[in-house]
Parts: sequence; structure tokens; C-alpha cells
Amino acid sequence: MTQVSVQGAPRYLTGDKAGLKEFLDKFDVFLFDCDGVLWSGDHLFPGTVETLELLRKNGKQVVFVTNNSTKSRADYRKKLEGLGIPSTVEEIFSSSYSSSIYISRILKLPENKRKVYVIGETGIEQELQSENVPFIGGTDPAYRRDVTPEDYKKIAAGDESILDPEVGVVLVGLDFHMNYLKIALAYHYIKRGAVFLATNIDSTLPNSGTLFPGAGSMSAPLIMMLNKEPVALGKPSQAMMDAIEGKFQFDRSRACMVGDRANTDIRFGLEGKLGGTLGVLTGVSSKEDFVSGDSKPHVYLDKLSDLLESE
Amino acid sequence: MTQVSVQGAPRYLTGDKAGLKEFLDKFDVFLFDCDGVLWSGDHLFPGTVETLELLRKNGKQVVFVTNNSTKSRADYRKKLEGLGIPSTVEEIFSSSYSSSIYISRILKLPENKRKVYVIGETGIEQELQSENVPFIGGTDPAYRRDVTPEDYKKIAAGDESILDPEVGVVLVGLDFHMNYLKIALAYHYIKRGAVFLATNIDSTLPNSGTLFPGAGSMSAPLIMMLNKEPVALGKPSQAMMDAIEGKFQFDRSRACMVGDRANTDIRFGLEGKLGGTLGVLTGVSSKEDFVSGDSKPHVYLDKLSDLLESE
Repeated sequence: MTQVSVQGAPRYLTGDKAGLKEFLDKFDVFLFDCDGVLWSGDHLFPGTVETLELLRKNGKQVVFVTNNSTKSRADYRKKLEGLGIPSTVEEIFSSSYSSSIYISRILKLPENKRKVYVIGETGIEQELQSENVPFIGGTDPAYRRDVTPEDYKKIAAGDESILDPEVGVVLVGLDFHMNYLKIALAYHYIKRGAVFLATNIDSTLPNSGTLFPGAGSMSAPLIMMLNKEPVALGKPSQAMMDAIEGKFQFDRSRACMVGDRANTDIRFGLEGKLGGTLGVLTGVSSKEDFVSGDSKPHVYLDKLSDLLESE
Repeated sequence: MTQVSVQGAPRYLTGDKAGLKEFLDKFDVFLFDCDGVLWSGDHLFPGTVETLELLRKNGKQVVFVTNNSTKSRADYRKKLEGLGIPSTVEEIFSSSYSSSIYISRILKLPENKRKVYVIGETGIEQELQSENVPFIGGTDPAYRRDVTPEDYKKIAAGDESILDPEVGVVLVGLDFHMNYLKIALAYHYIKRGAVFLATNIDSTLPNSGTLFPGAGSMSAPLIMMLNKEPVALGKPSQAMMDAIEGKFQFDRSRACMVGDRANTDIRFGLEGKLGGTLGVLTGVSSKEDFVSGDSKPHVYLDKLSDLLESE
């Protein structure tokens, strides 16, 4: 990972109308982390919709950046809509989409090795389809079963009825149907030369106010078995930033990352050398994290809607 | 882990009748790794039975030490018998038995926290039963299912219908029915204070001439989520050596570990300060590993049955 140089203390802009205006004027694009910034769980923060409206009214490009790999962009747009946030599919950038872009446009796979073996849910499948990337695994019920003595023999023999010779990529995202067979197959594909990718490496997933296994936990057995890390396509991986830039063609110096987590969101913006990073105190990181931590945002606010004070 | 001091080059004893005799005379107890030493897969090495006979005839105590946690000692004895090796249950020491001993005799659990949440197969359950340790999980079909939205809420709320308040230990072994729910439950038990144990941390499991996910891969998601390592009860963990010593009451200086893997078997004997370690070249480690590696055995042989040349 790139080492981010520690900069000076961030500026606190809540209530500072002139400072806010000056800050907003510096950027054309705002990349938003969502949970902890726009909402928490199922609770939309007051002023979120108005703040996004203000930005759009002033000609800013808004991008919603999420590591959630179980949802496609279309699914995610429905989620935003359900919370009352207007958005378009084009404004959404998820780790499953990022992974699909990386596979279809960046990885140079040999003609006969273009298939992806997926560990994950339907969101990944939909995004691979949107980029015309062939895949196996995923939600296919054929993989949701116990391993059998036959499987061991067939896998050891490289039998094509269980190991597809066209698989050139293993993509691991969050999979609520994770099992022994899936891990064994992923391991053998990678040992046979497949590229090891992860939609993201968040070890945990917030749900119902506590934590559950995240996509990173699905990669963990493979990392241990292979003694090898996957290329990760979610925040804070710069492969995701490259994919976002590739799509929106923005000037990084005129872009700002907004997030609640110093070590993922803010680090993502800093390592991506964006012109700005904005921390909000409505999520995981504390004022202390922003002011004295390793990944300090350029500015921080009590809450996102404090941006409305710029008017 | 204890740092093992690098000693001189090991002595090569194949064909050296006097050297073999002198070596054997030094020990009363021989601890045997099995696969790669006595057999490979389903193939018994020629001379294995005769070599064990020779040792027994000379009054040596023989102990079979295995990290395989899916089998109980009784199961393992049947396996030995099936391969033509006479043995008794008392001569067998498996990581599931080692774990049960550790839980019942070494861990001092509060009265109301004595239950073990098991990730693993029947071998672990049988050994817990043999030590009268209460447990849940394991092969119970109630845990072999998909996670539901209800589960998240109940787990978050600490609902006793899903999180047993008497669980004070999480024991993770090889589980061919590993799933998302099991990992989520293990995580929450440990977060609530349960002791995190692993039968062993082998990342892979040899089968059909290749490798499959091992018990260590079952712990990997939890290690990543918790940022915490389990206490491991298999080789090369000295918790297993302590359990073996506790049972057989031998003099370590008069005991010898026999194995094919320098970094597990030989290291296990060296860190346990046994009087001797014997490497054989019928398994994983090469002559190079034994002669120049970090964990050098005291002596090594081409194959175990070379011990017969001492007669």
C-alpha cells in the first residue's frame, strides 16, 4: 500500500459559511461514501437530500461509492430511492461494478481464459453481465452443496466436469452461501493460474447495529492457503479509484472524497491524490481520528448537512 | 512462538547400524507423525509394521500424533487397523483429543460458561463427550442452513434462542459444512468473551494427492474479523505437547519425535525440548530442508523402515 504522508490538522468547517463556500468552489466532483455519511442503517440523516440537491444545483457531479458487492448498481439505486434519495444508475459505483470494469477493460486475459469463477451473490453476476464477462459459480445452486469424495478425486485429476479450463479469474465477494466446496474450487483455480481478485476486503459487514462476516472474510481462507493477497477492487484500493476516473474522466485535483471512515474513505481519497477529502462525524471515525490519526481529511464537519450553511 | 536455536547439521543414519542402535537406545518414547512417515494417503510404506514391532519389542512406548480433527481416537485406530497397523486407542493422540483435554483439564472456566460452541465434525464431538464437556454446534443439522434476516436481529439483540449464554469456548476444527451462519455465531461468541481455540492451524489438508482447505482455513475468517489468533491445540503448538506429557508422564529427554515435516513435526519436537527428533524423507520435507532449514532434526533417514537395520 502507498504510504500517505501525514499532513497538517484538518480544518473544521461547521458553521464557517465563508470557509464552506470556498471549499465547495474548489471541486467539480464529490465522491460519497454512503452508510455513516448519507444514512445509518435504515435511518436517513436529516438534510441529506437537500445537501445533494445543493451540490447538483451548483453543477457538481455526485458519485455514490460503495463497497457493497452483493448489490448491483440497479439494486443500489433502488436502495437509495427507498431511503428517499434521488439518483441514477450512472451515479453509482459499487465494488462489484468496479470489479467487472477491471476484468473487462484492464485485465488482459488470453482468449481461452476469459471466464470468471465467482464467489458471491447476484450483484456481482449482474455487473459481470453488464460488461459481457462470462462467469460460473455465484448463485448457481449446483455450488450450494456439500463436498463429496468424488469431488476430491475429480479436482485432483483436473477433471473438466468440475474445473472449467476457461476460468482465468477468481472473483471473491460477499457470499452468504459460502461453503467448503466453493473455497476448494477457488483454491484450485488460482493454483492453476487464475487471477485472484476480491471485490473488497472489509473483514466485517455492519448489520442490525452490529457486525457480521464481510467480503474480506470470504477471501481469508484462500489468503491463508495460498499465502497470497487478492487484488482488491473496493475502497481503499486504488484500482477502484482508477476505475472511477476511467468512467467519469474527472480532474483529480477538482474532486473530493466524502466519508466517515479515516482508514478507508479518507485514505482512499488521499492515496488517490484527490484535491480534497471531507470527513463527517456521523459514522465510525471520531474527531480524534480525523485530527490526530494517520489519514487526516483536509476538512471535517459535524454532519454532511452542515454544507447547507454555505448558502 | 518460541525461537528454536539453529543447531548443527543432522546425522544421516541410513545404513549406519551402530549409529542407529546408539540412537534408539537413547529413547523410551517415540511420537509419530503418521501421513508421510508410516503411510502416504492410502499406501502403507513397506516395513512400517515391522518397524513399530521392533520398537515395541524393545519396550518403547509408541504414540501416534495427528492433527486430523475430524476423527476421534477410536476412528483413527480403525484407520490404522485398516492400513494393517496394530494400535490401541490409548496410543493415539489427535488434535481433537488434545483440545478436549485442554478444555476439561487446563482451562479454568466459570461454572456458568462451560459449554463449547463447535465448528467441526464428529471427531471433535466424540472427544468432548469422552471428557464430559458439554457442547453445541458441530454436526447439529440446525446449524447447516442459510443465514436469515431474523438471525441478524436475534444475534444483534443477544437473543438466547440463538446465542447460548453458557458458551465459554469456541473450538474451531475442520468442518466440511462450514457456512456463513457458523462463522457469524463463532464471531459473536468470541466478542462476548468466549475463549478462541483451534484444534490445529494447518491451512491445507492433503487429499487425493493434492491439497484442500484445512482446519486453519476455517479459523481464517475469524482471525481476520477479530484481529486475534486462536490458541491452537495441534502440532506444532506446545499446548499439544503439554497434553501428551500430561497423559503419558514421560521424561522429555528420553522421547523422540518422528516426522516428515521440518516446520511442523520437527519444530514440534525441538520446541518441546525432546531428547531427539528424527526426520524421514518419505513425505513433505527434502534432505535440503533437514540439512539447511530452520528446524533441523537431530538425525534423518531415507525412510522409517531403515530403523530395521539396527538389528
